[in-house]
Amino acid sequence: MKPSPISATVDFDAPGVSHGFLRLPYSRDDAAWGSVMIPLTVVKNGTGPTALLTGANHGDEYEGPIALFDLAAKVRAEDVSGRLIILPAMNYPAFLAGTRTSPIDKGNLNRSFPGRPDGTVTEKIADYFQRVLLPMADVVLDFHSGGKTLDFLPYCAAHVLPDKVQETRAFDLVRAFGAPWSCRMLEIDAVGMYDTAAEEMGKVFVTTELGGGGTATARTTEIAKQGLRNLLIAAGVLKGEVAPRATRWLDMPDADCFTFAEDGGLIAFWADLGDRVEAGQPVAQIYPTGRTGIAPLSVTAGRSGLLVARHFPGLVKPGDCVAVVAVEV
Amino acid sequence: MKPSPISATVDFDAPGVSHGFLRLPYSRDDAAWGSVMIPLTVVKNGTGPTALLTGANHGDEYEGPIALFDLAAKVRAEDVSGRLIILPAMNYPAFLAGTRTSPIDKGNLNRSFPGRPDGTVTEKIADYFQRVLLPMADVVLDFHSGGKTLDFLPYCAAHVLPDKVQETRAFDLVRAFGAPWSCRMLEIDAVGMYDTAAEEMGKVFVTTELGGGGTATARTTEIAKQGLRNLLIAAGVLKGEVAPRATRWLDMPDADCFTFAEDGGLIAFWADLGDRVEAGQPVAQIYPTGRTGIAPLSVTAGRSGLLVARHFPGLVKPGDCVAVVAVEV
Amino acid sequence: MKPSPISATVDFDAPGVSHGFLRLPYSRDDAAWGSVMIPLTVVKNGTGPTALLTGANHGDEYEGPIALFDLAAKVRAEDVSGRLIILPAMNYPAFLAGTRTSPIDKGNLNRSFPGRPDGTVTEKIADYFQRVLLPMADVVLDFHSGGKTLDFLPYCAAHVLPDKVQETRAFDLVRAFGAPWSCRMLEIDAVGMYDTAAEEMGKVFVTTELGGGGTATARTTEIAKQGLRNLLIAAGVLKGEVAPRATRWLDMPDADCFTFAEDGGLIAFWADLGDRVEAGQPVAQIYPTGRTGIAPLSVTAGRSGLLVARHFPGLVKPGDCVAVVAVEV
Amino acid sequence: MKPSPISATVDFDAPGVSHGFLRLPYSRDDAAWGSVMIPLTVVKNGTGPTALLTGANHGDEYEGPIALFDLAAKVRAEDVSGRLIILPAMNYPAFLAGTRTSPIDKGNLNRSFPGRPDGTVTEKIADYFQRVLLPMADVVLDFHSGGKTLDFLPYCAAHVLPDKVQETRAFDLVRAFGAPWSCRMLEIDAVGMYDTAAEEMGKVFVTTELGGGGTATARTTEIAKQGLRNLLIAAGVLKGEVAPRATRWLDMPDADCFTFAEDGGLIAFWADLGDRVEAGQPVAQIYPTGRTGIAPLSVTAGRSGLLVARHFPGLVKPGDCVAVVAVEV
Amino acid sequence: MKPSPISATVDFDAPGVSHGFLRLPYSRDDAAWGSVMIPLTVVKNGTGPTALLTGANHGDEYEGPIALFDLAAKVRAEDVSGRLIILPAMNYPAFLAGTRTSPIDKGNLNRSFPGRPDGTVTEKIADYFQRVLLPMADVVLDFHSGGKTLDFLPYCAAHVLPDKVQETRAFDLVRAFGAPWSCRMLEIDAVGMYDTAAEEMGKVFVTTELGGGGTATARTTEIAKQGLRNLLIAAGVLKGEVAPRATRWLDMPDADCFTFAEDGGLIAFWADLGDRVEAGQPVAQIYPTGRTGIAPLSVTAGRSGLLVARHFPGLVKPGDCVAVVAVEV
Amino acid sequence: MKPSPISATVDFDAPGVSHGFLRLPYSRDDAAWGSVMIPLTVVKNGTGPTALLTGANHGDEYEGPIALFDLAAKVRAEDVSGRLIILPAMNYPAFLAGTRTSPIDKGNLNRSFPGRPDGTVTEKIADYFQRVLLPMADVVLDFHSGGKTLDFLPYCAAHVLPDKVQETRAFDLVRAFGAPWSCRMLEIDAVGMYDTAAEEMGKVFVTTELGGGGTATARTTEIAKQGLRNLLIAAGVLKGEVAPRATRWLDMPDADCFTFAEDGGLIAFWADLGDRVEAGQPVAQIYPTGRTGIAPLSVTAGRSGLLVARHFPGLVKPGDCVAVVAVEV
Repeated sequence: MKPSPISATVDFDAPGVSHGFLRLPYSRDDAAWGSVMIPLTVVKNGTGPTALLTGANHGDEYEGPIALFDLAAKVRAEDVSGRLIILPAMNYPAFLAGTRTSPIDKGNLNRSFPGRPDGTVTEKIADYFQRVLLPMADVVLDFHSGGKTLDFLPYCAAHVLPDKVQETRAFDLVRAFGAPWSCRMLEIDAVGMYDTAAEEMGKVFVTTELGGGGTATARTTEIAKQGLRNLLIAAGVLKGEVAPRATRWLDMPDADCFTFAEDGGLIAFWADLGDRVEAGQPVAQIYPTGRTGIAPLSVTAGRSGLLVARHFPGLVKPGDCVAVVAVEV
Repeated sequence: MKPSPISATVDFDAPGVSHGFLRLPYSRDDAAWGSVMIPLTVVKNGTGPTALLTGANHGDEYEGPIALFDLAAKVRAEDVSGRLIILPAMNYPAFLAGTRTSPIDKGNLNRSFPGRPDGTVTEKIADYFQRVLLPMADVVLDFHSGGKTLDFLPYCAAHVLPDKVQETRAFDLVRAFGAPWSCRMLEIDAVGMYDTAAEEMGKVFVTTELGGGGTATARTTEIAKQGLRNLLIAAGVLKGEVAPRATRWLDMPDADCFTFAEDGGLIAFWADLGDRVEAGQPVAQIYPTGRTGIAPLSVTAGRSGLLVARHFPGLVKPGDCVAVVAVEV
Repeated sequence: MKPSPISATVDFDAPGVSHGFLRLPYSRDDAAWGSVMIPLTVVKNGTGPTALLTGANHGDEYEGPIALFDLAAKVRAEDVSGRLIILPAMNYPAFLAGTRTSPIDKGNLNRSFPGRPDGTVTEKIADYFQRVLLPMADVVLDFHSGGKTLDFLPYCAAHVLPDKVQETRAFDLVRAFGAPWSCRMLEIDAVGMYDTAAEEMGKVFVTTELGGGGTATARTTEIAKQGLRNLLIAAGVLKGEVAPRATRWLDMPDADCFTFAEDGGLIAFWADLGDRVEAGQPVAQIYPTGRTGIAPLSVTAGRSGLLVARHFPGLVKPGDCVAVVAVEV
Repeated sequence: MKPSPISATVDFDAPGVSHGFLRLPYSRDDAAWGSVMIPLTVVKNGTGPTALLTGANHGDEYEGPIALFDLAAKVRAEDVSGRLIILPAMNYPAFLAGTRTSPIDKGNLNRSFPGRPDGTVTEKIADYFQRVLLPMADVVLDFHSGGKTLDFLPYCAAHVLPDKVQETRAFDLVRAFGAPWSCRMLEIDAVGMYDTAAEEMGKVFVTTELGGGGTATARTTEIAKQGLRNLLIAAGVLKGEVAPRATRWLDMPDADCFTFAEDGGLIAFWADLGDRVEAGQPVAQIYPTGRTGIAPLSVTAGRSGLLVARHFPGLVKPGDCVAVVAVEV
Repeated sequence: MKPSPISATVDFDAPGVSHGFLRLPYSRDDAAWGSVMIPLTVVKNGTGPTALLTGANHGDEYEGPIALFDLAAKVRAEDVSGRLIILPAMNYPAFLAGTRTSPIDKGNLNRSFPGRPDGTVTEKIADYFQRVLLPMADVVLDFHSGGKTLDFLPYCAAHVLPDKVQETRAFDLVRAFGAPWSCRMLEIDAVGMYDTAAEEMGKVFVTTELGGGGTATARTTEIAKQGLRNLLIAAGVLKGEVAPRATRWLDMPDADCFTFAEDGGLIAFWADLGDRVEAGQPVAQIYPTGRTGIAPLSVTAGRSGLLVARHFPGLVKPGDCVAVVAVEV
Repeated sequence: MKPSPISATVDFDAPGVSHGFLRLPYSRDDAAWGSVMIPLTVVKNGTGPTALLTGANHGDEYEGPIALFDLAAKVRAEDVSGRLIILPAMNYPAFLAGTRTSPIDKGNLNRSFPGRPDGTVTEKIADYFQRVLLPMADVVLDFHSGGKTLDFLPYCAAHVLPDKVQETRAFDLVRAFGAPWSCRMLEIDAVGMYDTAAEEMGKVFVTTELGGGGTATARTTEIAKQGLRNLLIAAGVLKGEVAPRATRWLDMPDADCFTFAEDGGLIAFWADLGDRVEAGQPVAQIYPTGRTGIAPLSVTAGRSGLLVARHFPGLVKPGDCVAVVAVEV
């Protein structure tokens, strides 16, 4: 396979704090010899594990980028035991555009793994993580939130895995992170995901969903910063002590957790995030927008549990995911 | 002045419930003899005042349209004493597009009054309200929320007016509405506003800000529906009794309430809506997005009070309003 | 009022055939000192009236431009008695784009009269016709067809006018044109139309609707060419003899002739152009496109008569004109 | 090969009439967990063959969708012997946009077979037909028309095939369909076509070209509805009797049937659909649009026969197919 | 007339160097309460005249913005006698977009004077200069270059004016500026220009054309910086001594200086900027791009002189200005 | 592998001068049976080598297309010994759009080799060159310039190759071309290039960089025309004598020749093309555009030598190539 066209402007093995870029050559109409410059910080000190930390895998999710730009700006080399590789905006073109996918190629980075060195810009980023960055890592934390079209109860999560040692280490870090909610996920369709790429290499992989709507609140920002610090300490790569925080565990056992719209219109919810809903009862109504005087259509929950995610925009389209219900464990 | 090109497909004086449209001829490339069809419900019964009820003056604000599509679908003529004129989506092209302004002409309807019969589509809508609908009304309720780029504490509001009888009647309706917060507004720059157009005709005008971010929650939807019902009963146009709800009063005395960004980047708030902030202290930080390792810039509050509105998207541009602080009274 | 910024590259008074342009300065991002170049032919010979001949007043109507580009390419000066001023593509930017309105300013030229010398590109064209070209003319022929979104039975038409001498001369030319159908039009809303601008100056004004759908057939092309020749001979500006052709007369007495859609969807007609329809009976059905298994909505004729125009595209939007019914006289 | 990500919301084996969707997950900026919902009706009763019926393989062709939305809305289970699988809008995103290809990925569905389960949206649709729907079918009817840029004499057609039993059965159904014209097609370049995919599985495949220009007339709509009914009866899947209709047979023997433009401009035809043209004689003229006074360029027929298809829009571009001539047999 | 909605964040009368913004409120879909922030530097020291200095009146012209951002970053208050008001990017939205006109409203700022306080964004900028900034100024220097579509010999210029004292002072500053070429301009069509607005108030107005093509070279940048310094010293607002530079004077007496294209295509020049051309001789050839084997069309000079400006892009459109010829004096 | 869908309308073996097209079928929304028509001239006379001559491999580079449209229009068969295959606009869709890459598929033709017969339009063009045109050629000349975003000192170049006979023949032609500068290139990353495709077949391949900025000057046009003539004579395919011209030789030994921007802003160069620069010294400064009063950032040369290429537009983006320095040999 061809080498990646991406080059880093910093040395991953240099001690201390190094700020730089991944430079990805990208020839185009407005820059014949242009590049995408993905900001990168590497912190190396002494011996210890390597943590690979990413935000904006989807470009419209903000708690992760805030926590990681903040960490990169403040971290001192002497606080580290091992190495931090920090990319606050993994799909950088999407992040700058404020969109889930890349404005260059519409690539959804989290469905593009293992990528290609001679593919689109998004595929080149995936390939660089697959073949260069993931192999360096022991622990991988990839921040997600709901983005502009979904909103989530804030939780940290890991996957149920065949290797129970690997799984246990991941859930230990989820517990250390200490989000208000924690989630055990059984991934059904893992094709193309960064999660899967990392886990198949045996890495300890942790992810989050910390809010959504294309914004971050002071509360969710604080969850991200505190959780990041706790996780890095628990992983042994940051000095200090974990600040324990209570968490409640959730499970999403099957496809009945997800409700999709069959009609478009103006959506009005009957329940907010964290509310308890019952199977077969309406979670929302959809008003047709072409006329007044028409009764709205009800959208029902497929199972009983907590409303953990919902469609965010005021208008809904046929096929959109309206609600996700999880079971408390 | 020329007559409006808009025609209503229902009779404003017919008794009972009539559902129809304002038809606004709009010739364009994809419809040589096309029209904009703005949904409209008129309910007339017995004698009593006329209430003119509007949502989606800005097309990305949703509590009002939900409450009004719902009212139009459920209201029975016998519950009314007088007349309801319901336009759940006043700037209908903007509402369908999910945008603040009209996708046809970029018109901000709430800055387009008194409008023009031979102007743009948005100006034609304004003109029809100015010369046809407002003159029919006694009470005007215009629902607003923050839209996709702002988020608000939920409040109902009216303006301080030179005519104290008119002002008192408006604040009586604000109190009846019963939102969690109520606001006295001293409008400085009222040029082109629907509010001003209504008030200058002597109408009792009430408005709201009920949330934002381009969505509606179950909670804010309920505030809108309950408030609408209460207000219409208090105004004497709907039969029934006002369901009293507690409210707290706010004031925004001067320009120091508003903080604007001078730099763009990734925004992280230090306070959430309803939190108390102090003059001169940071309400948010802006991280430059071009590099890691740079200290964020602080954005400070201009006065002490409650954070009643904030910038919503995760990225901020120079010139955006970051925060609004109000004083509790 | 300021002078027009438009200049002609040919002399309107030079004998013989002159091909050139109206040059309209138009500064823009891709041409700081650019211009719109509207093709123009002037033919002058001996004494006689001036005929001003235009196509593509709406840019997606083709019989007129074909007949006029053809005339401009073939006409010999010795065949003329007086003067021909030929502009095959009056709204030239719209014509090049194949759109009803101008891609530059979305201007509908036939709603832009009298125009402005310091307005948009479309308004500048209208102003030049209003103040320079129309004053030169005795007879004005403005070709129309249905464009991309409407289709018409082929007819030539003139307006019922207060000045009966002017009216009679126009209908004489309509009869000479000899389209399969001829129409007496009582213009209700004449604001901004080229027709009105010409008639108010006392010019003899004739127009057509010769097909539509954004194309021309061999048959409608032949109607346009033959009619043009006949009309110019009857007007005394072209030598030769009128080739008589049978025509049938139509009338559109009121607004009931026009049927508009209140719903969008897939449209299926029950009648074709020239078919007889009855008041209150369906002319078309609209199938909702979001689901199968739903009964289509019927659209009915407002009066009995011939179907003389119909919505053209396979999908219809709320507010589109679906059908026009005329009465045979 | 991976399983298709598409799931049907109805059971293909359930007796009676089932209306539902193919749900195709499609994550994008405006719907993180969105889907394309392709309307689908399945009718099953007793024993008998399965007919797979599709319209809008190209999204701007309308006779098929009308006939199939109509059938889906009216068909009763007791009229069926076997099974109907009805997809009135096969490339549903293209159909909603009114475009030949998908607005999502510019995919021409009829050049995308056999498709890919991990490809673009259009490729996923093709793959689902290839691996799920086609294997269920005995008879396949795929409606086409000319779309927005071509216009056709209305005909039903099948391919000359190596398997003469399969071929004979197809032409029997073409004859039963009873369009005004019927066509024997020898496909030269069949790469990626739905036709080929079906025929290679041994299915009896019938197609049509029933008009064009991006619209449907009452006449072509009736041809589609009657032909559909006749074909289904002849195929033994619908009860009733074939209503015989006269048809005339056409052949398109080689590449000389097709004439392409080498210059762009305003196109004027010398012949209409169904007219007889002679090899070497002009079928159309192209007027350059940059100036007046230039002789038009002639476009000639490559062989003698009937004009069975023509370029539709009033402007033509270099490389466009101007005319198709077929031989009557 | 209404007050301007623009406010400055700095005090124009404060001594020392103040960096800030003009804040222009601009409500839009992506910022309900957004603003345009136009960078501004004010330097005040002692007594003396006020110089108003602007670049990017057209957003794709770069020598001026470079010289003014540079001056703003380096100037010390003690070097000034009077006041500098520096706006390096007058039409700031156009400057950020790299386009001649504003991406917001397509406004050409230099054709928008005197502007309107309630107009478009560009008209509001013009109005603020007209009513606030120009009245403060004694000397006005407005930098121009050719932008992306024209290229110029570098010259400084002023207008022939009715007030000969005003004219003489302007030409004294042109001479002090010391560009390689200097130009006396007799403005024919001055409607809407900033130049005219300034001159009608009696201000001493100087402008430049310093290159073009949407770039700046080291050479033209140096001309701008040196000329700016010289002019400010000569105007008495900057301390120091004028560094004399040789200049040659040009005149553009009439419309024959300008040659426009009547055809589009690939343009090849026979002369470069500064070359001598003769009336009636070709300055360029235009190759049609639709075919090979066609002779190119010649474009000729309307008078003899120096080629001082030319069309820049490799393709030319009908109506574009191809060449400007000036006379040396 | 499938055959190419492209067909030539001329016979490559016919004696004399033949003008025609490569016709590439391209079905799309605005032309169901449309094609891309790439202009082509073939000149064949007697015996001798075949020269394949191309311009607009990148669509915004103009010296090559001018020289080749000119040659195609003027060349006489009797001047040729062998065969010329002339494609003045290789990536024709990009050339018509004035963009580096194809507006159809964003394809960079010079990174698309060897192409695919069933790929995108750009890949189909590459495949036709790879499998049809290159095999016919002995000598290949592919004209390049800097395009809209780069500017170059004018040079002709060839690659250092493993086959020294092939290399020597190429450099002999570079010397004959006689550009002001000549360059020896050691291609590091040759993936997908036309150059490599030609060289791997053993063809003698010569290329150029003759200016840039998206324009051509009289001077660079003359270099292209003279060099083309000289090269064809030296290659033995055109009769006549080489007109010797002085040239200076350049070398670009390693990656230090290239400098990239890490920040965006307004760029001001300290050196122009052809100026000598020193390693470690600034070649340009970048002014941040968000505020005044900030010191610009310096961009330094990585090695000493001549500035042979530079970023062209006035604004620069992070990742753009700012400068290329070469060593004189």
